[in-house]
Amino acid sequence: MSKSAAAPVNLAEKLSQFNELWSQKKVAVLNDYEVKLAKLKGEFVWHTHEDTDELFLVISGRLTLQLRDGTVVLEPGELFVVPSGIEHCPVADEETAILLFEPAGTINTGDAGGPMTKPAEILS
Amino acid sequence: MSKSAAAPVNLAEKLSQFNELWSQKKVAVLNDYEVKLAKLKGEFVWHTHEDTDELFLVISGRLTLQLRDGTVVLEPGELFVVPSGIEHCPVADEETAILLFEPAGTINTGDAGGPMTKPAEILS
Repeated sequence: MSKSAAAPVNLAEKLSQFNELWSQKKVAVLNDYEVKLAKLKGEFVWHTHEDTDELFLVISGRLTLQLRDGTVVLEPGELFVVPSGIEHCPVADEETAILLFEPAGTINTGDAGGPMTKPAEILS
Repeated sequence: MSKSAAAPVNLAEKLSQFNELWSQKKVAVLNDYEVKLAKLKGEFVWHTHEDTDELFLVISGRLTLQLRDGTVVLEPGELFVVPSGIEHCPVADEETAILLFEPAGTINTGDAGGPMTKPAEILS
Protein backbone atom coordinates (compact mmCIF):
# COMPACT_ATOMS: atom_id res chain seq x y z
CA MET A 1 0.00 0.00 0.00
CA SER A 2 1.35 3.38 -0.93
CA LYS A 3 1.33 6.35 1.38
CA SER A 4 -1.68 8.55 1.92
CA ALA A 5 -1.75 11.45 -0.52
CA ALA A 6 -4.34 13.66 1.10
CA ALA A 7 -7.27 13.48 3.46
CA PRO A 8 -10.85 13.22 2.25
CA VAL A 9 -13.49 15.64 3.50
CA ASN A 10 -15.70 13.85 6.03
CA LEU A 11 -19.05 15.63 6.00
CA ALA A 12 -20.14 14.51 9.48
CA GLU A 13 -16.83 15.61 10.95
CA LYS A 14 -17.07 19.00 9.27
CA LEU A 15 -20.64 19.43 10.49
CA SER A 16 -19.49 18.70 14.05
CA GLN A 17 -17.17 21.71 13.88
CA PHE A 18 -19.88 24.37 13.95
CA ASN A 19 -23.33 25.03 15.37
CA GLU A 20 -24.12 28.39 13.85
CA LEU A 21 -27.31 28.48 11.82
CA TRP A 22 -27.63 30.01 8.34
CA SER A 23 -23.88 30.34 7.93
CA GLN A 24 -22.31 28.64 4.91
CA LYS A 25 -19.00 26.85 5.48
CA LYS A 26 -16.75 26.02 2.51
CA VAL A 27 -15.37 22.49 2.62
CA ALA A 28 -14.13 21.92 -0.94
CA VAL A 29 -13.44 23.73 -4.19
CA LEU A 30 -14.02 22.33 -7.68
CA ASN A 31 -12.76 24.63 -10.43
CA ASP A 32 -14.62 27.91 -9.76
CA TYR A 33 -17.38 26.16 -7.80
CA GLU A 34 -17.60 25.51 -4.08
CA VAL A 35 -19.01 22.78 -1.86
CA LYS A 36 -20.46 24.32 1.28
CA LEU A 37 -22.21 23.01 4.38
CA ALA A 38 -24.84 24.78 6.41
CA LYS A 39 -27.15 24.16 9.35
CA LEU A 40 -30.64 25.59 9.07
CA LYS A 41 -33.59 25.99 11.38
CA GLY A 42 -36.55 28.26 10.86
CA GLU A 43 -37.27 30.31 7.78
CA PHE A 44 -34.75 32.14 5.59
CA VAL A 45 -35.60 35.04 3.26
CA TRP A 46 -37.20 34.95 -0.17
CA HIS A 47 -34.48 35.58 -2.74
CA THR A 48 -33.34 34.87 -6.27
CA HIS A 49 -29.97 34.08 -7.82
CA GLU A 50 -30.24 35.66 -11.24
CA ASP A 51 -26.96 34.25 -12.56
CA THR A 52 -26.76 30.74 -11.24
CA ASP A 53 -28.60 27.57 -10.37
CA GLU A 54 -28.20 26.40 -6.77
CA LEU A 55 -27.96 22.79 -5.58
CA PHE A 56 -29.31 21.70 -2.18
CA LEU A 57 -28.55 18.19 -0.82
CA VAL A 58 -30.02 17.30 2.57
CA ILE A 59 -27.69 15.37 4.90
CA SER A 60 -29.91 15.27 7.99
CA GLY A 61 -33.23 16.78 9.01
CA ARG A 62 -35.76 17.98 6.45
CA LEU A 63 -35.70 21.00 4.17
CA THR A 64 -38.66 22.66 2.53
CA LEU A 65 -37.87 24.86 -0.44
CA GLN A 66 -40.73 27.28 -0.86
CA LEU A 67 -41.09 28.39 -4.47
CA ARG A 68 -43.69 30.79 -5.80
CA ASP A 69 -45.51 27.94 -7.54
CA GLY A 70 -45.29 25.32 -4.82
CA THR A 71 -42.89 23.59 -2.46
CA VAL A 72 -40.21 20.92 -2.65
CA VAL A 73 -39.57 18.86 0.48
CA LEU A 74 -36.15 17.26 0.78
CA GLU A 75 -35.39 14.36 3.10
CA PRO A 76 -31.83 13.11 3.81
CA GLY A 77 -30.24 11.77 0.64
CA GLU A 78 -32.37 13.97 -1.59
CA LEU A 79 -31.22 16.88 -3.72
CA PHE A 80 -32.85 19.62 -5.73
CA VAL A 81 -31.52 22.28 -8.07
CA VAL A 82 -33.26 25.66 -7.89
CA PRO A 83 -32.87 27.17 -11.37
CA SER A 84 -31.43 30.66 -11.79
CA GLY A 85 -34.06 33.36 -11.71
CA ILE A 86 -36.45 31.32 -9.57
CA GLU A 87 -37.42 32.95 -6.30
CA HIS A 88 -37.13 30.62 -3.33
CA CYS A 89 -37.18 30.58 0.46
CA PRO A 90 -35.72 27.66 2.46
CA VAL A 91 -37.46 26.67 5.68
CA ALA A 92 -36.65 23.91 8.16
CA ASP A 93 -38.91 22.98 11.08
CA GLU A 94 -36.15 20.97 12.73
CA GLU A 95 -32.40 21.59 12.58
CA THR A 96 -31.30 20.47 9.15
CA ALA A 97 -27.84 19.98 7.68
CA ILE A 98 -27.35 20.58 3.98
CA LEU A 99 -24.65 20.51 1.34
CA LEU A 100 -24.71 23.33 -1.20
CA PHE A 101 -23.02 23.37 -4.57
CA GLU A 102 -22.76 26.58 -6.55
CA PRO A 103 -20.24 29.00 -8.09
CA ALA A 104 -17.71 30.58 -5.74
CA GLY A 105 -18.90 33.95 -4.52
CA THR A 106 -22.63 33.19 -4.71
CA ILE A 107 -24.30 35.31 -2.01
CA ASN A 108 -26.60 33.42 0.36
CA THR A 109 -29.42 35.96 0.10
CA GLY A 110 -29.06 36.48 -3.66
CA ASP A 111 -30.76 39.68 -4.79
CA ALA A 112 -32.59 40.20 -1.50
CA GLY A 113 -29.77 41.38 0.75
CA GLY A 114 -30.71 42.23 4.32
CA PRO A 115 -29.49 41.18 7.75
CA MET A 116 -29.09 37.47 6.93
CA THR A 117 -26.56 38.22 4.18
CA LYS A 118 -23.28 36.58 5.07
CA PRO A 119 -20.29 35.51 2.99
CA ALA A 120 -19.36 31.83 3.11
CA GLU A 121 -16.57 31.05 5.56
CA ILE A 122 -13.72 28.61 5.21
CA LEU A 123 -14.08 25.79 7.72
CA SER A 124 -10.58 25.28 9.11
CA MET B 1 -49.53 24.01 2.30
CA SER B 2 -49.08 24.96 -1.33
CA LYS B 3 -48.87 22.42 -4.08
CA SER B 4 -45.72 20.49 -4.87
CA ALA B 5 -43.65 22.33 -7.45
CA ALA B 6 -41.28 19.57 -8.49
CA ALA B 7 -39.85 16.32 -7.22
CA PRO B 8 -36.48 16.12 -5.51
CA VAL B 9 -33.85 13.64 -6.69
CA ASN B 10 -33.71 10.75 -4.23
CA LEU B 11 -30.21 9.28 -4.54
CA ALA B 12 -31.10 5.83 -3.17
CA GLU B 13 -34.06 5.56 -5.54
CA LYS B 14 -31.90 6.56 -8.50
CA LEU B 15 -29.25 4.03 -7.50
CA SER B 16 -31.90 1.31 -7.38
CA GLN B 17 -32.64 1.92 -11.06
CA PHE B 18 -29.40 0.47 -12.41
CA ASN B 19 -26.85 -2.22 -11.68
CA GLU B 20 -24.33 -1.59 -14.42
CA LEU B 21 -20.80 -0.94 -13.17
CA TRP B 22 -18.58 1.92 -14.35
CA SER B 23 -21.44 3.66 -16.16
CA GLN B 24 -22.17 7.23 -15.14
CA LYS B 25 -25.84 8.22 -14.85
CA LYS B 26 -26.84 11.90 -14.90
CA VAL B 27 -29.36 12.80 -12.22
CA ALA B 28 -29.19 16.61 -12.10
CA VAL B 29 -27.78 19.59 -13.95
CA LEU B 30 -26.43 22.78 -12.33
CA ASN B 31 -25.52 25.45 -14.87
CA ASP B 32 -23.02 23.68 -17.15
CA TYR B 33 -22.14 21.08 -14.52
CA GLU B 34 -23.68 17.67 -13.92
CA VAL B 35 -24.42 15.50 -10.91
CA LYS B 36 -23.88 11.87 -11.83
CA LEU B 37 -24.15 8.56 -10.01
CA ALA B 38 -22.09 5.46 -10.63
CA LYS B 39 -21.56 1.99 -9.21
CA LEU B 40 -18.01 0.75 -9.13
CA LYS B 41 -16.31 -2.54 -8.39
CA GLY B 42 -12.77 -3.48 -9.27
CA GLU B 43 -10.16 -1.21 -10.79
CA PHE B 44 -10.72 1.49 -13.41
CA VAL B 45 -7.98 2.89 -15.67
CA TRP B 46 -5.33 5.46 -14.86
CA HIS B 47 -6.32 8.73 -16.45
CA THR B 48 -6.14 12.51 -16.16
CA HIS B 49 -8.64 15.31 -16.76
CA GLU B 50 -6.45 18.13 -18.01
CA ASP B 51 -9.19 20.75 -17.99
CA THR B 52 -11.22 20.10 -14.86
CA ASP B 53 -11.19 19.05 -11.26
CA GLU B 54 -13.41 16.05 -10.44
CA LEU B 55 -15.43 15.55 -7.25
CA PHE B 56 -16.08 12.08 -5.81
CA LEU B 57 -18.56 11.60 -2.94
CA VAL B 58 -19.03 8.07 -1.61
CA ILE B 59 -22.63 7.07 -0.84
CA SER B 60 -22.04 3.42 0.05
CA GLY B 61 -19.11 1.03 -0.04
CA ARG B 62 -15.53 2.25 -0.05
CA LEU B 63 -13.53 3.95 -2.79
CA THR B 64 -9.78 4.14 -3.08
CA LEU B 65 -8.45 6.84 -5.35
CA GLN B 66 -4.98 5.82 -6.40
CA LEU B 67 -2.81 8.82 -7.19
CA ARG B 68 0.80 8.75 -8.30
CA ASP B 69 1.95 10.07 -4.94
CA GLY B 70 -0.31 8.01 -2.69
CA THR B 71 -3.91 7.00 -2.13
CA VAL B 72 -7.07 8.53 -0.73
CA VAL B 73 -9.62 6.18 0.82
CA LEU B 74 -13.22 7.43 0.91
CA GLU B 75 -15.86 5.98 3.21
CA PRO B 76 -19.57 6.84 2.92
CA GLY B 77 -20.15 10.54 3.58
CA GLU B 78 -16.64 11.47 2.49
CA LEU B 79 -15.67 13.44 -0.59
CA PHE B 80 -12.47 14.29 -2.40
CA VAL B 81 -11.66 16.57 -5.31
CA VAL B 82 -9.02 15.28 -7.73
CA PRO B 83 -7.39 18.41 -9.18
CA SER B 84 -7.12 18.87 -12.93
CA GLY B 85 -3.93 17.43 -14.36
CA ILE B 86 -3.54 14.85 -11.58
CA GLU B 87 -3.43 11.26 -12.79
CA HIS B 88 -5.75 8.97 -10.83
CA CYS B 89 -7.22 5.49 -10.87
CA PRO B 90 -10.33 4.60 -8.83
CA VAL B 91 -10.54 1.14 -7.31
CA ALA B 92 -13.24 -0.45 -5.16
CA ASP B 93 -12.86 -3.84 -3.50
CA GLU B 94 -16.58 -4.06 -2.78
CA GLU B 95 -19.43 -2.60 -4.85
CA THR B 96 -19.40 1.11 -4.18
CA ALA B 97 -21.90 3.83 -5.08
CA ILE B 98 -20.61 7.33 -5.72
CA LEU B 99 -21.83 10.76 -6.67
CA LEU B 100 -19.71 12.68 -9.17
CA PHE B 101 -19.77 16.39 -9.79
CA GLU B 102 -17.99 17.86 -12.80
CA PRO B 103 -18.58 19.89 -15.97
CA ALA B 104 -21.03 18.46 -18.48
CA GLY B 105 -19.26 16.42 -21.12
CA THR B 106 -16.36 15.31 -18.94
CA ILE B 107 -15.24 11.93 -20.28
CA ASN B 108 -14.97 9.16 -17.70
CA THR B 109 -11.56 7.98 -18.89
CA GLY B 110 -10.17 11.48 -19.42
CA ASP B 111 -7.09 11.45 -21.64
CA ALA B 112 -6.66 7.68 -21.47
CA GLY B 113 -9.51 6.50 -23.73
CA GLY B 114 -9.80 2.76 -24.22
CA PRO B 115 -12.59 0.21 -23.85
CA MET B 116 -13.99 1.63 -20.59
CA THR B 117 -14.73 4.99 -22.21
CA LYS B 118 -18.44 5.63 -22.04
CA PRO B 119 -20.53 8.81 -22.21
CA ALA B 120 -22.73 9.56 -19.21
CA GLU B 121 -26.34 8.47 -19.67
CA ILE B 122 -29.50 10.19 -18.56
CA LEU B 123 -31.25 8.16 -15.88
CA SER B 124 -34.90 8.27 -16.81
